Amino acid sequence: MSAEKFEKSKTIELRKKHVGPSCKIFFSHDPIKIVQAKGQYMYDEKGQCYLDCINNVAHVGHCHPDVVKAAAQQMELLNTNSRFLHDNLVFYAQRLQATLPEKLSVCYFVNSGSEANDLALRLARQYSGHKDIITLENAYHGHVSSLIDISPYKFHQLSDAEQNQFVHVAPSPDVYRGKYRADYSDPATAYANEVKAIIDTVHKKGGKIAAFIAESLQSCGGQVIPPVGYFQQVAKHVHKAGGLFIADEVQVGFGRVGTNFWAFQLQGEDFVPDIVTMGKPIGNGHPMSCVVTTREVAEAFMSSGMEYFNTFGGNPVSCAIGLAVLDVIVKEDLQGNALRVGQYLTNLLEKQKEKHPLIGDIRGCGLFVGVELVKDRLKLTPATAEAQEVIYKLKEQHILLSADGPHRNVLKFKPPMCFTMEDADLVVEKIDLILTALQNTLI
Amino acid sequence: MSAEKFEKSKTIELRKKHVGPSCKIFFSHDPIKIVQAKGQYMYDEKGQCYLDCINNVAHVGHCHPDVVKAAAQQMELLNTNSRFLHDNLVFYAQRLQATLPEKLSVCYFVNSGSEANDLALRLARQYSGHKDIITLENAYHGHVSSLIDISPYKFHQLSDAEQNQFVHVAPSPDVYRGKYRADYSDPATAYANEVKAIIDTVHKKGGKIAAFIAESLQSCGGQVIPPVGYFQQVAKHVHKAGGLFIADEVQVGFGRVGTNFWAFQLQGEDFVPDIVTMGKPIGNGHPMSCVVTTREVAEAFMSSGMEYFNTFGGNPVSCAIGLAVLDVIVKEDLQGNALRVGQYLTNLLEKQKEKHPLIGDIRGCGLFVGVELVKDRLKLTPATAEAQEVIYKLKEQHILLSADGPHRNVLKFKPPMCFTMEDADLVVEKIDLILTALQNTLI
Repeated sequence: MSAEKFEKSKTIELRKKHVGPSCKIFFSHDPIKIVQAKGQYMYDEKGQCYLDCINNVAHVGHCHPDVVKAAAQQMELLNTNSRFLHDNLVFYAQRLQATLPEKLSVCYFVNSGSEANDLALRLARQYSGHKDIITLENAYHGHVSSLIDISPYKFHQLSDAEQNQFVHVAPSPDVYRGKYRADYSDPATAYANEVKAIIDTVHKKGGKIAAFIAESLQSCGGQVIPPVGYFQQVAKHVHKAGGLFIADEVQVGFGRVGTNFWAFQLQGEDFVPDIVTMGKPIGNGHPMSCVVTTREVAEAFMSSGMEYFNTFGGNPVSCAIGLAVLDVIVKEDLQGNALRVGQYLTNLLEKQKEKHPLIGDIRGCGLFVGVELVKDRLKLTPATAEAQEVIYKLKEQHILLSADGPHRNVLKFKPPMCFTMEDADLVVEKIDLILTALQNTLI
Repeated sequence: MSAEKFEKSKTIELRKKHVGPSCKIFFSHDPIKIVQAKGQYMYDEKGQCYLDCINNVAHVGHCHPDVVKAAAQQMELLNTNSRFLHDNLVFYAQRLQATLPEKLSVCYFVNSGSEANDLALRLARQYSGHKDIITLENAYHGHVSSLIDISPYKFHQLSDAEQNQFVHVAPSPDVYRGKYRADYSDPATAYANEVKAIIDTVHKKGGKIAAFIAESLQSCGGQVIPPVGYFQQVAKHVHKAGGLFIADEVQVGFGRVGTNFWAFQLQGEDFVPDIVTMGKPIGNGHPMSCVVTTREVAEAFMSSGMEYFNTFGGNPVSCAIGLAVLDVIVKEDLQGNALRVGQYLTNLLEKQKEKHPLIGDIRGCGLFVGVELVKDRLKLTPATAEAQEVIYKLKEQHILLSADGPHRNVLKFKPPMCFTMEDADLVVEKIDLILTALQNTLI
């Protein structure tokens, strides 16, 4: 394809020379060079097509023409900071607000999920006057210093991890592999009580809770779906301690779960977080994100006396892109598509579970689906190597999927929202073949 | 203009309702609604033109057609993360590297100056194994938690500022108003010795220096230009303590200073920082930024075992934009223009200084110029209200300028780099009239 400037070997050489070695690449022993993408398909330098089952950033489909057009038009007209009045900023804030419960009415526009979660912590600490944060086991909230501190998924990678004294880790509300499982009478209450116990311990030591933060559905943590009622009970305990509930929708918001626009809404209409953070899908790949909170929290933040200014946050181009993404979701009924195709995919996978003992659990909402591979369905021994094998074999079949979770044994589906039933058929058919071959090897 | 969706009053109403009240607007009692911009000019909803003397983000000129075209073309083709090989990423890294001393060869692409400076601190702490950071009085390094801690410009705004125990503030190397002034025999050594004294104190208390961080020229701190030789001496002291020198070029890089591409190069060829952070001008308004460091620091960072992944950082669109910005700087000789027009502007302002006692100091490099207003040239009493008056009167004349520094008495010029001598004539002529009127009122 004409889009190639260097031969692949030269690209690899330059990357080794000039890009930080901590920045990992997919399939590092034989990385893919992608030069073009459209919808749910990506193309390498030879024109080979790959089905993308993992890119939750290209939410409405790679290079969606409506989004590209909105961006290009606004870029030609104006791109400046939010110290000037601009209609895109306020219209976008109004449109985002309309997707949320009424009390979540005040927006802060930033550039990444990390900037959003960092600001959420600042809002909570300023509002409460407290410092302690409760986070979940295996959580991932971003890459800036303050967020590595609250991301066990990250800080467990450190050879010399030293846990921040203000950070407390509660058990992941994982009803498949966690402390309280599906057979437990009331796992929601049991997991919420774990949070309450942490609050009590913090109080005993003289600490005070600023916030509980959780991804509405844990993604890197292994596609974990908390039991309904868990967030309500946690919120009650956290509010009683004077803290706030932060719902991190960076990976799972914007209709992906199918039944609702926001994943926290899976818990029921009686649950409303105090702060919602957004990211990845919000701009279909454009660097932008948002924090939404209540008037009370926003006023408390202002009372600190410190201005909040973000150079690029809320610029007219980012807002035009954000608006276009919202429009496409509605126009193409992508939330409905996520529900329908997600259900179809989950059904196909359930049939695979009957066939392949390696599949321990299928869980998902809309186009956010996890397939947990285990060597033993009773002991739940993680089938980590097998999960890697599936990923690599799928790559050979030109299908992009990833494995994550604390044991890297959960196959993660989070494709662009235009994913079709035919795409689902194809990937499941290939998984079937790969698992069959794997099973034969094991026997 | 057609670009208006709401009447101005409605925009203001929606902004009050849906945008965080901590997000301040220029001229809050009568804010400007900007709907279009081109080069160094911005246009409000009525088509009124404003001369922009402050927007260092729209570096090569607002909405530069080459940049817009590069962005639109790449957006149509591909926008994905850096886990796939892409030529834009490596070519851009190579091109950036070519502007820097050879040993600064490894890049990390992120989305904002804040993300860049936070990563710089992480790199320095991992490399050194130390925690303590030395920062300058009045410094501003960003808005995420870790950077507010090292930004006296920000944390002094807090009603209940509590200084981070690992952060130490050295005097700003300001030879006009600082501890050691132009009449001092060797201010560079004197200011560097202040840093050495801090290192000694930290060591006595059992601490260890991870880094010294400074804007190559302080911007919010009042357009401060450190004396030549200061950075070299500081680097010597910091290296001896096992720490790194971080040069923050977020506000002043990319040819703005005229004589050099990077502002730290004003100190001389014998000075090379260990880490350089970039931001604002890098993408002409597109949310992107970069950290560049040495192979040694990058390897040490990798040895922590923690991957570095930034969802949007280094995507093909951001890199295409970054490449276009570098091309335009060369093609239009904007660095040369900054040198010539900056010199012309400084000369015009020097003449004003002879005429107006309110002007205490003119300092600048290229198109980064500060005009410090004082009520008394001996006592240096800050003329804060007068600076505000100048800004407001200039706004009435449709010229955008700002006042900053710890006393908000420094008029700051940092216009798009296509600023012309005619633009300089116009703004200085208006300042002359305003200062004359002001002087008459004072008499």
